[in-house]
Amino acid sequence: MNTAGKTISARTERIRKDLEAMAAFTASPGRGMTRHSFSEEDKKTREYIRARMEEAGLSTYEDAAGSLFGRRAGKRADAPAIMIGSHFDSVKNGGDFDGPAGVVMGLEIARTLHEHGVETEYPLEFAALVEEEGARFGGGLYGSRAMTGRVSREQLDTFKDRDGISAAEAMHSFGFDPDRIGEAVRPKGSLKAFIELHIEQGPILEAEGLDVGIVKTIVGITQQEVEILGRPDHAGTTPMDMRANALLAASETALFLDRAAREAGEGTVGTIGRMEVFPGGANIVPGRVFFTVDIRSVNNEKVTGLVSSLGAFLKEMETKHGVRTSITEKITVAPVHMSEEIVGLFTEEAKKRGYSMRSMQSGAGHDAMIMAGITDVGLVFVPSKGGRSHCPEEWTDYEQIAKGVNVILGAVLSLAGA
Amino acid sequence: MNTAGKTISARTERIRKDLEAMAAFTASPGRGMTRHSFSEEDKKTREYIRARMEEAGLSTYEDAAGSLFGRRAGKRADAPAIMIGSHFDSVKNGGDFDGPAGVVMGLEIARTLHEHGVETEYPLEFAALVEEEGARFGGGLYGSRAMTGRVSREQLDTFKDRDGISAAEAMHSFGFDPDRIGEAVRPKGSLKAFIELHIEQGPILEAEGLDVGIVKTIVGITQQEVEILGRPDHAGTTPMDMRANALLAASETALFLDRAAREAGEGTVGTIGRMEVFPGGANIVPGRVFFTVDIRSVNNEKVTGLVSSLGAFLKEMETKHGVRTSITEKITVAPVHMSEEIVGLFTEEAKKRGYSMRSMQSGAGHDAMIMAGITDVGLVFVPSKGGRSHCPEEWTDYEQIAKGVNVILGAVLSLAGA
Repeated sequence: MNTAGKTISARTERIRKDLEAMAAFTASPGRGMTRHSFSEEDKKTREYIRARMEEAGLSTYEDAAGSLFGRRAGKRADAPAIMIGSHFDSVKNGGDFDGPAGVVMGLEIARTLHEHGVETEYPLEFAALVEEEGARFGGGLYGSRAMTGRVSREQLDTFKDRDGISAAEAMHSFGFDPDRIGEAVRPKGSLKAFIELHIEQGPILEAEGLDVGIVKTIVGITQQEVEILGRPDHAGTTPMDMRANALLAASETALFLDRAAREAGEGTVGTIGRMEVFPGGANIVPGRVFFTVDIRSVNNEKVTGLVSSLGAFLKEMETKHGVRTSITEKITVAPVHMSEEIVGLFTEEAKKRGYSMRSMQSGAGHDAMIMAGITDVGLVFVPSKGGRSHCPEEWTDYEQIAKGVNVILGAVLSLAGA
Repeated sequence: MNTAGKTISARTERIRKDLEAMAAFTASPGRGMTRHSFSEEDKKTREYIRARMEEAGLSTYEDAAGSLFGRRAGKRADAPAIMIGSHFDSVKNGGDFDGPAGVVMGLEIARTLHEHGVETEYPLEFAALVEEEGARFGGGLYGSRAMTGRVSREQLDTFKDRDGISAAEAMHSFGFDPDRIGEAVRPKGSLKAFIELHIEQGPILEAEGLDVGIVKTIVGITQQEVEILGRPDHAGTTPMDMRANALLAASETALFLDRAAREAGEGTVGTIGRMEVFPGGANIVPGRVFFTVDIRSVNNEKVTGLVSSLGAFLKEMETKHGVRTSITEKITVAPVHMSEEIVGLFTEEAKKRGYSMRSMQSGAGHDAMIMAGITDVGLVFVPSKGGRSHCPEEWTDYEQIAKGVNVILGAVLSLAGA
């Protein structure tokens, strides 16, 4: 962090302190942040957050799923709450910002309101959610899914970690009762809004030299798996025109997907991230290729259109290369739109403070996407250095996070009726 | 084997008996032939071959490398010998014909000469070579390399199997003295010719409905390894135009190689057989791709030309996709030409017997390729069902092998001065 010649605000300094403290609780010191849910590192981090919440005058509690909350009463006791925060678990060997930056945003807003003795009409809840990454149990977005009624008791037995420990077992040894998972559900109408800050995890804000990104839409995603079957012939003895080379069909498909995603526009992306070639001998024509396809767009029609033209392209490949192809849908999620009102409040506050900003799409899923199922949501991005995330190099300057906090603070004060 | 309505000759029947007997000596019953050199299966097969050689009146011995030979004296005691045969080791989970078909060809010729009391001017040596596949120690063509002085004592220590047993140790426990490896060398002039029969391992003879293929040239081969380095960005958050996608560069290269090999003609082939994509997450843009390149041609200029245009193409990819590329040569072998005299004798004999045939290139390396370094060589191909080899489905009808034997028998009688 280069802060030479800059005034470091008290806010920036507190954000630094929180993030550095939480960064110490990793299962892989020296190799990035590894903080799986319901682990020793979870416990230490949770205690740190709880202590900060209590210092800020919040009443803390954990919900039935294991997420931690700090509540601040509103003048209107029974009014729906505005929930503010993010998750504090990480991927394996990830970074210190994905998740915690948003939790610390909440802590900082709670402290600010506490220091200034601000009273709001609506109650506020500051959230530190668990297992958003799914790095331990594979589900992902677990804390927010539990709040929206999308985690069943059965799933807690089904989802297991590498050591065969189920989510239910892990919860149990952490002091939670998996049988009560249903109690984590927030009834519709109990929340007025959910507001999250997250690192961008992409290169746009940095490349454009902007302070904050105000997310308008979280993209729709489809992930598909493709298998291409050719014939594993001897690479020396099989003439070029007598082959059924699965890799050539896969290569053409990779280039097609890239071209089609660019042509689709509106920020649509298409990626083959995993590809496996069999049998994989230097002197054997590839007889089978397996690959994943990931397509995302703010415009759902672009997603479905690309999947359909990909299917047609694979059929062409069958004829052209003498192969067979199959495509299987693994997951499809529709785009989710942020609240126009909250986007407006963010924009207004950023303008007032003279921050450079842009409206954005989020290409990654976040808890806000799930929370949108039960309440209005807002999501602010802060720049990711080099666009990197999920790696030890993940970085956002503390001052940049402070700017994100300021934008959200303004919106929260307005929404909460200060 | 469909022989309904055909007369099965005594020759075909003996070939069947030998091949079926040898097929039983596999380390992977029910999952194809696994006969590694200096293994229990090697010992049983070797004893079977030795017994058949002795029944055919041959004097058997093993050379210092561990290959088995049966010698038949010629009228001219000191004249150079004509060596006939192939190898009897296999790949892991391979077939029953790759190698043994040529060994049995030798046995059948020895038996025929013995039965008819044929005397020849030149001595004959029937060969059953070891470790041609390199499936145990990774070198390959070991028996013939040893005869041509291309195996050093050091290599026997360096080449190790999966269990860490060196070739030297394996030879030692099989009763061979690795320190005497140099004694396996056949002095130049000690052989008049080396003649091999092998399954085609390709689809051409079957597709054209031909009895035998008379090999004129064994292709030159180069194997290269390519690495493409891009950037492993998040597939959701990184716009299409801000990526450095290593897989797109690799895909273009795969299609380029295919196109360039076809354009080169003369049966030139180019193959990417192994490709690995890193980090390999469905939601991560490929940051690194490793792949092998295998190029073969009877025309050496086509091989070097393709390597050079591949290098230029990779440079183009660097600019186009923002990646870095590197290419490393692993092995390069020049094309090897068969003896025109022996090709002529094969052709004449095939014509005399009314066999359909064609002259061919061999796209795979064989012991004959190595033996060409010290003597005239001849190589006859028999059809491979479906072009398949190195798999349990590998198959050649026994009658087709008998035709190959007949072609070689005629040539041997002529060369040996019967």
